[in-house]
This record gives sequence, structure tokens and C-alpha cells, in this order.
Amino acid sequence: MQTPYVIIDLDIVETKFRELSEALHSTELCYAVKANPGKPVIERLAALGASFDVASVPEIDLVLSCGVEPARISFGNTIKKQRDIAYAAQQGITRFTVDTMSELHKVLAEAPQAEVCVRLFHDCEGADWPLSKKFGCGFADAKKILIAAGNAGCTTGISFHVGSQQRNLDAWLAPLQLCQQLITEVSQETVAPEFVNLGGGYPGSYLDDTPHISVYGDAIRKSLYDVFGGNTPRLMAEPGRYLVADAGTLHTEVVLVSERDIDARRWVYVDCGVFGGLAETLGESIRYRLHTEHDASAPASQIVLAGPTCDSADIIYDKAGYFLPDNLQVGEVIRIASTGAYTTSYSAIGFNGFAPLAQGYINIVAMKEPAV
Amino acid sequence: MQTPYVIIDLDIVETKFRELSEALHSTELCYAVKANPGKPVIERLAALGASFDVASVPEIDLVLSCGVEPARISFGNTIKKQRDIAYAAQQGITRFTVDTMSELHKVLAEAPQAEVCVRLFHDCEGADWPLSKKFGCGFADAKKILIAAGNAGCTTGISFHVGSQQRNLDAWLAPLQLCQQLITEVSQETVAPEFVNLGGGYPGSYLDDTPHISVYGDAIRKSLYDVFGGNTPRLMAEPGRYLVADAGTLHTEVVLVSERDIDARRWVYVDCGVFGGLAETLGESIRYRLHTEHDASAPASQIVLAGPTCDSADIIYDKAGYFLPDNLQVGEVIRIASTGAYTTSYSAIGFNGFAPLAQGYINIVAMKEPAV
Repeated sequence: MQTPYVIIDLDIVETKFRELSEALHSTELCYAVKANPGKPVIERLAALGASFDVASVPEIDLVLSCGVEPARISFGNTIKKQRDIAYAAQQGITRFTVDTMSELHKVLAEAPQAEVCVRLFHDCEGADWPLSKKFGCGFADAKKILIAAGNAGCTTGISFHVGSQQRNLDAWLAPLQLCQQLITEVSQETVAPEFVNLGGGYPGSYLDDTPHISVYGDAIRKSLYDVFGGNTPRLMAEPGRYLVADAGTLHTEVVLVSERDIDARRWVYVDCGVFGGLAETLGESIRYRLHTEHDASAPASQIVLAGPTCDSADIIYDKAGYFLPDNLQVGEVIRIASTGAYTTSYSAIGFNGFAPLAQGYINIVAMKEPAV
Repeated sequence: MQTPYVIIDLDIVETKFRELSEALHSTELCYAVKANPGKPVIERLAALGASFDVASVPEIDLVLSCGVEPARISFGNTIKKQRDIAYAAQQGITRFTVDTMSELHKVLAEAPQAEVCVRLFHDCEGADWPLSKKFGCGFADAKKILIAAGNAGCTTGISFHVGSQQRNLDAWLAPLQLCQQLITEVSQETVAPEFVNLGGGYPGSYLDDTPHISVYGDAIRKSLYDVFGGNTPRLMAEPGRYLVADAGTLHTEVVLVSERDIDARRWVYVDCGVFGGLAETLGESIRYRLHTEHDASAPASQIVLAGPTCDSADIIYDKAGYFLPDNLQVGEVIRIASTGAYTTSYSAIGFNGFAPLAQGYINIVAMKEPAV
């Protein structure tokens, strides 16, 4: 396999799924396919009993082609063409997310018996990537949409998203309080919303430390208990990054190590850049762990890491202040850890003529730890 | 053809090539293939006598497959794998750009009779997209590399780039003065550098007015005369955006018009976003002209324009303050002008399952203007 490529360890995907299931027990986990649409990933998660959150018709076709029944697929994109809703309904999909009345009308026209999820806007303090106002509506709109959907005979629920790579363990409390209040008020007018979708935000293992997923689980279950007491609604979640990020390792070759009179630092150019799969390094907000073939104790100095294209914006890390070994050579491979999420699917189709990032899989039979 | 797609008018590509040839007369124009690698674009430009600037082996193969002779191809990427230099040399390509001594050694090893272009760093005041320090070296390094290449028997020259969408007409003067000084100093040590590559930076027609290309041409030729007098070196340029941007029109369908209680503005969601080809709107630095099917005098109000993916960063224009007609409807097509450059090739291979941006071509026989 020629660099650059990502190798996905499917056993790690399985481990992550089991850990998150344990942490959020009794929560239906809908894998957000956009994080990594590799077919072996979907097949492994399907075998474990996962459900799936899809964004488009091609993602619906992909998940169905892996043998997943339509009842386990949720069309979670709030932005859908009416003909795509019709197509989904024809395939037997009944779960749709909306955040505006006009989108509800599209869904009711094509899938009158739908399970409708209304997405609440939430501003995401504590997340490495807080979300914009692109998705979600406020309390007043959510109430109107839930009442309209309930009156139309739909099962309803509420979703929110605390932001990507969320590191504040209490981030789920405030939106859960809003959900509880919505359920109370809506149930005075029509059928009560019956589920809450906890969204995503569960982290990958990048340079910054994050708590273990069990710590997240404890905090979220405490928030649920504080808000709902023993009367918790049916729960869903939409993990993407958490399930696949740590399963992936990106392999990229050093093309050029450059020392120039315009910068005191070495510039290390590799064959994968921000247009070839490392788009999440834009703004240097996601800082991956880098591994070289050299000993960690080898003398090292600060570098700028950049991609292979003729685009001056194709710089992976500049201000982040990475160090790499002084004797790093052209032709060596740098392994970039936790690159299983939002890499291959973000990759440009052919910018500068470079092929999209490839993906391979390993699938090692789990070995028991030796007895001590 | 299903939206989203770009239509390229090849006659406009031809017109732009003729205008730039006229503006920079006696300058060899090397089309920067990365701007739009569509085969009909390359074939049209090849028929007009263009040369080509390529960034990678697949771009070399593409240009050769259009019948272009290797002597008209320049491998202008300063970041090249040694085996890719070897491949290029095997195909008969002799023109390579470098900005560090280690890259020169790679070139000398694989293509000892190369024509070596040394890229000077230049900070790009006045450009909408100034360049980073990714490319180019300072005067001292450039002098060393030019002397080493000259002593190795290579023909040499100097390139620089004033930044993308450059709007300061005097931007070429300072780097030309450096080139002149380099030529003088290097020729005291070895064979004189014989060409200057003026790079790119010639603008597309976005919302902000830019001068006509003939005004650029006048300014650049005046700078050349001021620096070199009658003794101008052989000239090249690497236009990309200028030749193809205005030839392209992107067609995208309105998927959702959303009014929500969290924002006083309408949000208009279309089926092409920043991951589907509109990557240059990141940071809202390139502001395209939008056209709807409605009369320009129709009542309009401020909107946020966003793409179709489940990614909160997929917002095309927010702060830019665009207005669209109040009666814009779901299902209508918005045409985005001057989208022939850096759109299809930037498109993600399948983020959220959406297909990469398609491209079609029109090729209208030019009609004479009616006599007045």
C-alpha cells in the first residue's frame, strides 16, 4: 500500500463500542457514518447491534448494503431534499430529524408515520470545536414543531449536540433540563415526546488529555438522574469520532526536510496534508500524536509540518509547536495516531492531482492478557 | 445533470488566455493545472500554445495525455518525491522548481541537465490570500542554490509569487528588483540566471472590483522596464485562477430555507458547501457573485448561506452579509459565478456521502457582435 493511507483496527472499533455501551447503558448507539464510512467499520458495528445515523441517500444505501434493517437507521441530517426523504421512506426508514417547521412539512408529506426528532440549539462551551448556529432551534420553535408532529400522529423526541470533542463533563446537564421542560410542556398539548438523543461529542485521544469514557458516562447518568429522577425517557446517542478515531493510524512519507534562511525552524513536508485527509488540523485545533521511527529520546527540535500540495494554506502544524527528531530523513514514514475519524471522507478527490487518502483494515483476533 | 455541478465555458478560457498573453506579451504562460484539471480545459489551452505548470505525477500524466510535449511542462511544486522527479525525467520533462539545497540535490540526481527554477520567498501585501512561508527561500539561499545549479551545468532562473488574487498593481516591483540583484550577483560566480517566472496572482471576478488585466499588464511591464531597462530576461508566468475562474458557473439547488428563533436571519441551505467544492469561502475571503432566478429588484433580506452536510463548519457566507430574495423557494437553483478555479479539485471525495462536484463544458462557436 502506497502512502498516504489510514489503517483501521476493527478490534479497537469494537472495544470502543463496548466501552461506550457500558458507559451510557440502556442508550441506543447510532453510529454517525460520516465519521468514517468504511464498509468494514459499518459491518463490524452492525454485528455488535449498533444503529446508524446517516446524512444522505448514499449513506443510506451504504448502510443498507451492509445488511442493516431500516428500523436501525436514523436520517439525522436536518437538511434534506424532499425527494431524498421520499427515497428514505421507500427504503423503510422512519426516523427523521428536523429543526424547522418547513422541514417537518417535508417529512410529513413523504413519511406520515415518521418518528420525528427535533434538534435543539445548544451553545457548546467546553468543546474543542463548538458548533455554529447551523443546526437546531430554540425552545419556542422546538415546542411548536413537537406539538405539530405529535398532532400529526408522529412519535417524537428531542436531540441536542454538546459540540465535538467536548471536555466539560457537565455539558449535558443544561440541555437535558431543557428537554425535560419541553417534554412537560408539550405533553400538556399533545402526545409526550418519548425519547432524548444525547448526540455526540465523545472524544478521540489527541494530544490533550481527556477523561476515560466511563467518567463521561458517570457524569451523563448523574445529569440524567438529576433531571429525570427515575423517569428517564428512552435514550439514543450519535457517537462518531469516539468509535473510530483511536482505531485509525495514518501513514505518511516525509517528502522534504527543508532548512531555509526565512525561518529558523525546519519545515517537514509529508505526502498527506490538509486537502488529503488532515482537514481537521485547519486552525490547528485538533492536535494529533505523531510517531516516527526514531527513539523518543533522540535529539529533536521544533518544526513546521506541511502537506505536499502547491497551496500555501496546506500547513498542518505551525503555531502548535511540534518537535521532531533532528535526524528525521526524507523517505521515512510518520505515523499519525487517532486518525480514524474525519480523515478519509474529508479528503479532496484530487487536489494537485494527488489521489484521495486510502484506507485499509486490520482485524486481529483478540488475545487474552497473560496470567500474572 | 444533477446539481451541484460546474459548467466551464471553454470560449471564456480562450478569451482569458488571449487577454493575458496580450497583457504580458512575450511571456510564456504556464497554466497552473491545479486550478482546474479538467481535460477539455487543458486541451483548449494546449491548442492555443500554452505551457503547463504541474504539481504531481498524476498531473504530468494528465497533461501528457492531452498531447502536450514534455518541453512545455514545468514541474513547479517545490516538494517532490525523488522517485517522482525520476518519473518526470523519464517522461522527458526537464524543468523543475526548488527552494532548498536538498531539493536541488534530488533534481541533480535524477535530471542532471535540468532547467532549475529557484523560488524566492515574498511576503504578499495586497493579496486577498497572502501566502505563508511554505514556499520560497530568501536572497542568500537563492544565491547559493543558483550558483550550485549553474556550476552543475544547469540553465537557471528565478520565480516568485505575489499571492493569490493580488490587487496591488505594484506588487511585482520589489521581487523583480530582487531578481535583478540576484542575476547580477550570481553571474559574477557562474552562468547567469536566464529567466524570471512572474508566478500567478492574476485575479478572478469576485464581488470586489479588480482592474482589467491590461492594467495589470501595463504595471508589470513598467516594473520590468524600471528594473531591467531594455535587458529583460526570458519571462514566464503561472496563471491558474485568472484563466479559468470566470469561465465557471456553479449550479446548486436550495434544499431548505429555515427561519428559526435562534437567528433573525433566514438560513439558506444549498446542496454544495465548503466540503463539496466551495472551500475557498472558508474565512469568507473569496466572495462569489450569486444569481437567482428572481429579478434583481425583488424584495430581499439578509441570509446565511450554508452547505448540506452535518458539519457545523460547512457555512459558506455568514459575516459577509449576503442578501437573497424573500421569495426564494426550496428547489430553485442558485448560480454562483466565477467558480471555475479551485472548486472541483478541492471537492471532498464523499463527505457525508455526497458525491464530488461534477463538471461539464460548453463550447459555443463565437459569434461576431452585430454591427451598430
